[in-house]
Amino acid sequence: MMEGKVYKVGIVGATGLVGGELIQLLEREGFPIESLKLFASFDDAGEQMEFMSEQIMVEAIRADYFKELDLVFFSAHPMVSRDLAEDAEKAGVWVIDTSRWWRLHPDVPLVVPEVNPETLELGKRKIIASPSPASVALSLVLAPLEREFGLKRVGAVALYGSTQEGRLGFEEHQWQTIAIFNQQEFEVKKFPRQSAFNIFPQVGKFVGDETEEEQDVKNELYKIFPQADFKFSITCAQVPIFCGLSIALFVELKKNASTQNLREAFQKSSGIKLMDEPEKEIYPDTLASLEEDNVLVGRIRKDASGDNSFQLWLSSDNLRKGSALNMIQIAKLLIEKGLL
Amino acid sequence: MMEGKVYKVGIVGATGLVGGELIQLLEREGFPIESLKLFASFDDAGEQMEFMSEQIMVEAIRADYFKELDLVFFSAHPMVSRDLAEDAEKAGVWVIDTSRWWRLHPDVPLVVPEVNPETLELGKRKIIASPSPASVALSLVLAPLEREFGLKRVGAVALYGSTQEGRLGFEEHQWQTIAIFNQQEFEVKKFPRQSAFNIFPQVGKFVGDETEEEQDVKNELYKIFPQADFKFSITCAQVPIFCGLSIALFVELKKNASTQNLREAFQKSSGIKLMDEPEKEIYPDTLASLEEDNVLVGRIRKDASGDNSFQLWLSSDNLRKGSALNMIQIAKLLIEKGLL
Repeated sequence: MMEGKVYKVGIVGATGLVGGELIQLLEREGFPIESLKLFASFDDAGEQMEFMSEQIMVEAIRADYFKELDLVFFSAHPMVSRDLAEDAEKAGVWVIDTSRWWRLHPDVPLVVPEVNPETLELGKRKIIASPSPASVALSLVLAPLEREFGLKRVGAVALYGSTQEGRLGFEEHQWQTIAIFNQQEFEVKKFPRQSAFNIFPQVGKFVGDETEEEQDVKNELYKIFPQADFKFSITCAQVPIFCGLSIALFVELKKNASTQNLREAFQKSSGIKLMDEPEKEIYPDTLASLEEDNVLVGRIRKDASGDNSFQLWLSSDNLRKGSALNMIQIAKLLIEKGLL
Repeated sequence: MMEGKVYKVGIVGATGLVGGELIQLLEREGFPIESLKLFASFDDAGEQMEFMSEQIMVEAIRADYFKELDLVFFSAHPMVSRDLAEDAEKAGVWVIDTSRWWRLHPDVPLVVPEVNPETLELGKRKIIASPSPASVALSLVLAPLEREFGLKRVGAVALYGSTQEGRLGFEEHQWQTIAIFNQQEFEVKKFPRQSAFNIFPQVGKFVGDETEEEQDVKNELYKIFPQADFKFSITCAQVPIFCGLSIALFVELKKNASTQNLREAFQKSSGIKLMDEPEKEIYPDTLASLEEDNVLVGRIRKDASGDNSFQLWLSSDNLRKGSALNMIQIAKLLIEKGLL
């Protein structure tokens, strides 16, 4: 990191769940900040948020504010990223975006710093995308397996909490749950159907017989692992939790390996915490993953249904490593590489 | 069904969730009953339950009560089935048991009437076992695939509600959820960890690196499909819903097939309801499966990660077709075959 250099930073979507996490983590990480500007929609403008014991007033976002910044984090609706990220870029500002809008754009790097830091320089834009929380978690877990044993085939069932749909998703899920206990009526708006006490296999709209999220995660993983030739399939389902993401995984490897080999590969990897002692009932669950920087991995076992096949389970905080922490790690990497 | 013949029926575990469902369904199905005796533990004895507009008093279970019966349904703890099913059998009474105790016993048929009715006569005992709700749902969905295309490999991720642990599981989950909203403390007793707003990959105790439920479902499926040679693997997880069971499924077939072929196979099968129109957002969810006799199947799509591979989703009512309805269908089959 350049000694002493400090940056003018902005957050678009500061009042959202990822925005709040970004503010907390920028402080915790001691990110070198000269000034922090917080932006949100008109509705939230005027709100006060705390950073480093100071109160910062949230401003309604306007494109001409960007020119005073060095770096801006976008954690808002994809339409906001579509409309405003290029304005920031034209003003010479680095953009790190966590919406789905830029992730698959060919000129925009899609970065998980522990997995593909080298791609940061390959972008033709000043926009860097942070993957879907599911893609972040999966790529962290798949990277050591691909590197050490070669991946042949991966099947995933990913279970999403209501914060997948941001603060409005969180609130809808909360009010539905309370309404059910109080025998009151409730609205279904943010999700395609009732989310309280229900499980349904739809995250995002349908595109043919797949959902957007299923397509996104697949395409993001192929972008993150461009040299790999593994086949990947996924089912995404909404489950009635608030935060956190859990994924049941089937993997088939090219090389022979034991469960112990897999555990060792994970232990050497950064961004991963191994929790795998079934005899003590130690394994990851969604609650354990909350406010945890690492992706938790456990329940590693031989899958007797295939050669060189394994089953495992991972849990991850979708707001932290899935979004905010990954974005801050990308920003630090920009500094390390002298790009910012 | 033998014209006019009526039976003296008992239910052990009448005050439980499956017990209640049995009483309702015996009435709805017009099961030929001369008399119905309801049994429970000492704690629940004396309670009144309604059947055919009559109040029946629940009695504390005693082995010597069986001799007055023709048929007894066991929907209680496995230890109760272990201790009392043989007493009933010795008294010449047919036993249909939904606990895990007898399911894998070599002399006891494990029956899903739509799938393996022929095994009912093969038992050397008067005890018939009803499989785990997950095995019932899986066997109904796998049977037409095995019959028409041959199964090569099956991978499942099964998501269980709190009623997997009966009424006590239901209540613990309910009180935890309410306590969280009221910021009160709560107990974790029936489940290995907090179930409210959590997902954890453990159903039953660990046996090595698998859980009891994972082993059970695998062994039950191999017992239900003794001629089949498909490989099967499963991860079972507890999710914060009350009733219902959802399973994400990966299947690899021996013969070439299209998604349309699979849909047609399911449409011809009894016990299955096809809900598969993604363009209209029609697919199964857990809520839709409740109080539904059939297993709901949808999200059928090609799994590009393997040859002849497909992904699909199923949802089923664990208390109804998963337990009570299947037991009553077994009883009807006993009558049809002249065994009862």
